[in-house]
Amino acid sequence: MSPTWWLDPCKTVNADIVAQATERQQQLTKPAGSLGRLETVAVQLAGLQGQVKPTLRQIWIAIFAGDHGVVAEGVSAYPQEVTGQMLLNFVSGGAAISVLARQLGAQLEVVDLGTVNPALSLAGVRHLNLGAGTANFVHGAAMTQAQGELALQAGRDSVFRAKAAGMQLFIGGEMGIGNTTAASALACALLDCPVAHLTGPGTGLNAAGVSHKAQVIERALARHAAQRGDALQTLFNLGGFEIAALVGAYLACAQEGVAVLVDGFICTVAALVAVRLNPACRAWLLFGHRGAEPGHRHVLETLNAEPLLELDLRLGEGSGAALAVPLLRLACDLHGQMATFAEAAVADRQA
Amino acid sequence: MSPTWWLDPCKTVNADIVAQATERQQQLTKPAGSLGRLETVAVQLAGLQGQVKPTLRQIWIAIFAGDHGVVAEGVSAYPQEVTGQMLLNFVSGGAAISVLARQLGAQLEVVDLGTVNPALSLAGVRHLNLGAGTANFVHGAAMTQAQGELALQAGRDSVFRAKAAGMQLFIGGEMGIGNTTAASALACALLDCPVAHLTGPGTGLNAAGVSHKAQVIERALARHAAQRGDALQTLFNLGGFEIAALVGAYLACAQEGVAVLVDGFICTVAALVAVRLNPACRAWLLFGHRGAEPGHRHVLETLNAEPLLELDLRLGEGSGAALAVPLLRLACDLHGQMATFAEAAVADRQA
Repeated sequence: MSPTWWLDPCKTVNADIVAQATERQQQLTKPAGSLGRLETVAVQLAGLQGQVKPTLRQIWIAIFAGDHGVVAEGVSAYPQEVTGQMLLNFVSGGAAISVLARQLGAQLEVVDLGTVNPALSLAGVRHLNLGAGTANFVHGAAMTQAQGELALQAGRDSVFRAKAAGMQLFIGGEMGIGNTTAASALACALLDCPVAHLTGPGTGLNAAGVSHKAQVIERALARHAAQRGDALQTLFNLGGFEIAALVGAYLACAQEGVAVLVDGFICTVAALVAVRLNPACRAWLLFGHRGAEPGHRHVLETLNAEPLLELDLRLGEGSGAALAVPLLRLACDLHGQMATFAEAAVADRQA
Repeated sequence: MSPTWWLDPCKTVNADIVAQATERQQQLTKPAGSLGRLETVAVQLAGLQGQVKPTLRQIWIAIFAGDHGVVAEGVSAYPQEVTGQMLLNFVSGGAAISVLARQLGAQLEVVDLGTVNPALSLAGVRHLNLGAGTANFVHGAAMTQAQGELALQAGRDSVFRAKAAGMQLFIGGEMGIGNTTAASALACALLDCPVAHLTGPGTGLNAAGVSHKAQVIERALARHAAQRGDALQTLFNLGGFEIAALVGAYLACAQEGVAVLVDGFICTVAALVAVRLNPACRAWLLFGHRGAEPGHRHVLETLNAEPLLELDLRLGEGSGAALAVPLLRLACDLHGQMATFAEAAVADRQA
């Protein structure tokens, strides 16, 4: 592993298989193109998996959690101890993502990068203790270079576990009270975009709360303005441990050849960081849903990303990506199992 | 059964269960409302099923097929024998809906109301032989009153079979070369809407083809203008056998208390007819997807319907509704299986 492994080349998509899968789609017993987006994703997955008929039996869902020093500024509707409490809920099976993982037959991994309760020790959770949450980025960098690199590596480690277990799709989720503030700040810095465009209610702020949150982000952006051109340093200045882990995971997936299904606003901002660091990773990213957080649409457009679902979700945890898994699976089933015009003796359209 | 059974009262939604299900949603370990549309549909299904924790294990998919006399005017990109060929493909397992039904564990029923080949006899298909397709509605009524009532009844019969088999959700699909022309004509007549707004490429017409199709529909609307105020007669004048069967099925579902998941443009026009005939049936209709046919959006808006998916589909067969089934199932799973704040000892938001 090179010391700047995140800059190493990404795996190439198999263009020959893409051409074969595209040709197969044209022969299936339906008007050409009539399965819309499902045709596109089936062909894309074929290219990523290197097989004309892709499958998605093995799904890996990694939830990365961390606390945020910026919560001291009063930017969240929920108390900070919820981060740790939700870790228990994830492994106890009562959280939304726990239910979804069970129903999808997916493997769920929970990684605690560092919460305000460093003594937390839960069976089934990987506690990495990078710090008692990040530092308040209004006053300084959210994390040190060492912490940031460890967080990137934590994401990469999860991908290696997923790959060793034969996983065909990687979903990253996140939990961290205050993390829409970090994600909005990070996106504003990277996109050089007005704060108001990318700041929203998160899990439930009212208008006054959103306005205050925007002011906090303005102060943070001013504090770290000098380093805006450096995507990695900007991640360490304004991000969170769980966001950095997602960045590392997405980059490792692209390098190791594992397709990614990106979740909501926070994960999409992590994807933006990953693409800025190593643009070739973009080919390995599929997008699950467009969420209710107003800035999500803008970040998705920047990435030229068209998610499969739009259901007014604003939960995180990887839930929006998990909800899109059945569509991807059915896209593969249709692509692989439908009869061709020749097989079914059905007339194709008149020339 | 009354002679005008389609006007009989619909079953009442259980408002008490709706209230209890809404209350349960508020207690689950997530920010209130953060599961968006999935919360709404879980509560709606609770009210329709009369149980606080609804389930969707048993799914019925009925494909209604019929040919259209108006195809003589050159309104379709595909030859008319495809209707019959696709019937064989449905029961042989090679069509899109066959693959989807298999993957969903749904019961698939195929009903041939009447195609241009009356001698067709396929194992696994119910051949009703109402006629060798409808008459060309540019010159007269598409079907007689007797044919129309038999088609409505065919839909109702399918619902009774579904109910007897314990089905919890009814999906109607359709197959019939030329049926977007019938559906557009019907919608224009019922909504008093310009033909250009509701006429599109169907399975693949080019611009000249769409223009010609619109002219054919104009002639048909002029021919039947005197009866526009009568929704049932308009259905018989401008519809198709399979569209009338869908209308009958949706109305019977609402009367018998079976939730419906409506598919694309043609099915949505059938739903519009059903709501015009018996407005209370609307409560029993959920909508699976917004398709690529341009008129679909308009008809959905008229029905105040917000589909779950938008994937640029334009296949029919019930495929868009089938693709939404996993979302409905996961909505039920989340609603029924997530922990409450009290159960999980997670702090709710600050007051």
